Amino acid sequence: MDKIARIDMGAAGGPKVTVGDLGNYVGLGGRAMTSLVVATEVHPLAHPLGAENKLVISPGMLSGTTGSMTGRLSVGCKSPLTGTIKESNAGGQAAQVLARLGYAAVILEGKPEGDDLYKIVINKDGIKVIVDNSLKLMDNYPLVAKLREENGDKVAYITIGSAGERKLLAASIACTDPELRPTRHCGRGGVGAVMGAKRVKAIIIDDAGMKMRPPKDPDAYRDANRKFVEGLRKHPVTGEGLPAFGTNVMTNVLNEAGGYPTRNFKTGQFEGSASLSGETQAALEIERGGSATHGCHRGCVIQCSGIYNDKDGNYLTKQPEYETVWSHGGHCGISSLDTIAALDYLDDNIGVDTIEMGVTVGVAMEAGLAAFGDDAAAIRLVEEVQKGTPLGRILGSGAAVTGKVFGVERVPIVKDQALPAYDPRAVQGIGVTYAASTQGADHTMGYAIATNILKIGGDVDPLKPEGQVELSRNLQIATAAIDSTGMCLFIAFAIMDQPETFQALLDLLSSFHGSTMTGDDFVALGKKVLSAERDFNVRGGFNKHHDRLPRFFYAEPVAPHNLTFLVKDEEIDEFFNW
Amino acid sequence: MDKIARIDMGAAGGPKVTVGDLGNYVGLGGRAMTSLVVATEVHPLAHPLGAENKLVISPGMLSGTTGSMTGRLSVGCKSPLTGTIKESNAGGQAAQVLARLGYAAVILEGKPEGDDLYKIVINKDGIKVIVDNSLKLMDNYPLVAKLREENGDKVAYITIGSAGERKLLAASIACTDPELRPTRHCGRGGVGAVMGAKRVKAIIIDDAGMKMRPPKDPDAYRDANRKFVEGLRKHPVTGEGLPAFGTNVMTNVLNEAGGYPTRNFKTGQFEGSASLSGETQAALEIERGGSATHGCHRGCVIQCSGIYNDKDGNYLTKQPEYETVWSHGGHCGISSLDTIAALDYLDDNIGVDTIEMGVTVGVAMEAGLAAFGDDAAAIRLVEEVQKGTPLGRILGSGAAVTGKVFGVERVPIVKDQALPAYDPRAVQGIGVTYAASTQGADHTMGYAIATNILKIGGDVDPLKPEGQVELSRNLQIATAAIDSTGMCLFIAFAIMDQPETFQALLDLLSSFHGSTMTGDDFVALGKKVLSAERDFNVRGGFNKHHDRLPRFFYAEPVAPHNLTFLVKDEEIDEFFNW
Repeated sequence: MDKIARIDMGAAGGPKVTVGDLGNYVGLGGRAMTSLVVATEVHPLAHPLGAENKLVISPGMLSGTTGSMTGRLSVGCKSPLTGTIKESNAGGQAAQVLARLGYAAVILEGKPEGDDLYKIVINKDGIKVIVDNSLKLMDNYPLVAKLREENGDKVAYITIGSAGERKLLAASIACTDPELRPTRHCGRGGVGAVMGAKRVKAIIIDDAGMKMRPPKDPDAYRDANRKFVEGLRKHPVTGEGLPAFGTNVMTNVLNEAGGYPTRNFKTGQFEGSASLSGETQAALEIERGGSATHGCHRGCVIQCSGIYNDKDGNYLTKQPEYETVWSHGGHCGISSLDTIAALDYLDDNIGVDTIEMGVTVGVAMEAGLAAFGDDAAAIRLVEEVQKGTPLGRILGSGAAVTGKVFGVERVPIVKDQALPAYDPRAVQGIGVTYAASTQGADHTMGYAIATNILKIGGDVDPLKPEGQVELSRNLQIATAAIDSTGMCLFIAFAIMDQPETFQALLDLLSSFHGSTMTGDDFVALGKKVLSAERDFNVRGGFNKHHDRLPRFFYAEPVAPHNLTFLVKDEEIDEFFNW
Repeated sequence: MDKIARIDMGAAGGPKVTVGDLGNYVGLGGRAMTSLVVATEVHPLAHPLGAENKLVISPGMLSGTTGSMTGRLSVGCKSPLTGTIKESNAGGQAAQVLARLGYAAVILEGKPEGDDLYKIVINKDGIKVIVDNSLKLMDNYPLVAKLREENGDKVAYITIGSAGERKLLAASIACTDPELRPTRHCGRGGVGAVMGAKRVKAIIIDDAGMKMRPPKDPDAYRDANRKFVEGLRKHPVTGEGLPAFGTNVMTNVLNEAGGYPTRNFKTGQFEGSASLSGETQAALEIERGGSATHGCHRGCVIQCSGIYNDKDGNYLTKQPEYETVWSHGGHCGISSLDTIAALDYLDDNIGVDTIEMGVTVGVAMEAGLAAFGDDAAAIRLVEEVQKGTPLGRILGSGAAVTGKVFGVERVPIVKDQALPAYDPRAVQGIGVTYAASTQGADHTMGYAIATNILKIGGDVDPLKPEGQVELSRNLQIATAAIDSTGMCLFIAFAIMDQPETFQALLDLLSSFHGSTMTGDDFVALGKKVLSAERDFNVRGGFNKHHDRLPRFFYAEPVAPHNLTFLVKDEEIDEFFNW
């Protein structure tokens, strides 16, 4: 990872590739790379779909090595959904492959004239940008199938479906998993629309002829990795809960905690939750010959993914994540896993964020376009997105736009991004994350559920405002650092509880780079990333007044705890004072 | 005007009317009243369509008197289109009638449960709020016709069409003119959606039994009014240009100046401008038995309105304003006055802002929904708004939302409100007004065209950045004061050039209220209003970064002058430092 490729899609005479050294970005990877590049090079008032925006694709600092869990690919840009800076990361094979080819970042710049659609082929011989209008308006599954015919199965694919091509604000970027399924999505913030605006339909990455990235101290790296894996295997969340039931293990947990947002955040418990739970889902997956335990990239030891088959035992979709099961499930009053799996497939195929899409369907139900609990209507609405009808374009533009177009007051968004699967009135810490995050409502920015509900890394009462800002701040700083390493965020459960596992992570970074990374250095990295992101936003007009939840969270108590969001504005305003 | 009526539409048991004294708002009218009430009483982060927002309806300080030009009605709220504070004013009869009934403001508060639709009857006996579901989804012309059957012709009507009821962001509030046509619209900022959110379809105002509001010094008032009218009659704009050709006298002027935004701001001159000009329009109106000279309210001496008949001599619509002729005309590459008149009628009937609607059609053309210059397609698109289809809802949500939904980069908006009919690259002063206005892009906030192009009140070169901030600031301050008096803004042409006419205005205010208003007092009033508006916005998260034009105005020079927008950000940031 000693080079950066810049592809000027708007160059005179056609796209132009320039490969250069790392310059000021030396040592960065993942979110640190994407956020520093965007914050440094993109005008904060640039139109997200214009030539001034850049799409930065970056493997993590440890991606492409023998280290476990290092397969996250970060994608960054100015978000067309939120107007803030955005980093969205996904698993799949792309990060490992791109890293082994030596690219610390591939940056899509400019914007082509005309309607031509491009694919980019990256291999040991370099980078080619090729017009391929035969791919126009293809969705991810058939698109990858077609690309596989030409490029085979030993490569990784990064693609956008019809949603990205249509520049819809909920559009995602898909990465293929080890079985070449386009199921791992950089979902949030409309990053797929930015790729679509640059007219890039697919990036094909082939690391044939390349080797694993070598650590500076191979023995120490091997040793650290062994300890790291041991730590993950012994922690109850990363060693038991996630492998057995996937992220959807959280349905029962959140429902019991009264923090499961039901029917557009009207109550905190869903009567249909049992049929949606991870336990139910895993049993069904196994019964149908799918799998409840699966890694989204090679080198994963948590294996929280899975395979969801239909009644006849045929592949339907990857195991839907908890947030997807919630957004298309309880949020819409729907309690059928088969319906949700069908929607998950549709979302992955079209290429839209499952959280944004599900929340949007719920807002459409609030507007009266369908009844809560109407499974067929939910599917029909998402099919409109696939068809690209005006209604589909509205819904594919996300919850904020859908709320505006249909005159809905009750829209669960922060900075125009849909809230995920945790009610901030029952889990006050996550409300701070939604409000103060540099990227709009996003649970992965600082997963306060861990400490509020799972009692990992401490115990902060979820129902009280005290301590939530500090909790969210610490989590957001740590997350920004983890998102830079290429590590899956789920390692956080183990490193928060087990000092020796955190030390193993630091040892991995130290032994790989031949330098010393301490816990303080790790925190400093996280702060550096967050500060750059915040600075970009501030220069783009964001301030404390935008760090707020929608008004109804302050006014409407939610059952069963009958609480509103209690953290004071003044406390949240101290978030970035560290 | 010694009382304020508050109507709590969300009161338990049904809407509740409370009439009280003026309290802290004594002496205020028009925009000063609406903006001070909103800034004082509405939470700046309130949802514009929620119970927390208020719709303040206020006649001007001199409305309901024998003074000429005093017929403007101000409507204020937090805007669902821009998120800023909003004051939108219109002519017609409502202001005079409401003022004579003694109401300095009628404030719609709260929000009813359920689907019932209400009409409000205001007369000498008080205020009644009546359920009338027979009015549901009626458009303004048939709505007023139906209301006239019940309430007669000696009243004023304030109504919303289907757009307001649907809470579309471009929805206007219509006021009837002396002939009971719903043609005078509080157009900008989606004020109609706020009225729709409060489920108020119509306000019927009957001043039977009431008298003209008496001045404290009747002789001095009469004398001042005589001098004031003399001043208006002798000025070439208010005495000749506007009466003869209406506001559309500006088509030729702007086209010659190279500031006529053509085909979504791609060039500054339109080859079809001659067929759209005020001169052409007036001749056609007269030829068809309409009228090129007409007052929108009794007591108007400028008479810039008119009647536009169809080929058979039947009433088609009121004389379309310059900004309408532009937005539906040159902006969309359309050069048929009959097409524009048909669209003007549609807009008035549905109840949408003609500027927002026309600009939005142009953005839809940019998106490829229709070709520039396709008259039939333009009509078809606006008819979608009337039908309330998903496409119609998108378009009725204005240019910003339409741009988002269709992935268009080139969207001429500031704070999500469409730019009016003057290119800020060829008329730099109006660019400052668009950028720094408290209410998004709006020429009426500080009509720099006067001094940049018409050389009224001085001469500031339209093509240079120098002096534009000071010009726009002075105009915005004066405008905020004028908008508070109930006076039509067009008096500004005369008072800027003729000190004695400005003195006559001050004398009108002084003699009516029995106090002394100096020029400094007038400026202080304007500053007070603007400051309150700015403060509301700042508390709602707006800052200098939002006081910018879309990026393409800084990057793309526009023919024929081949200039970009040249006023520096740092200068605009000094706007509110007075």
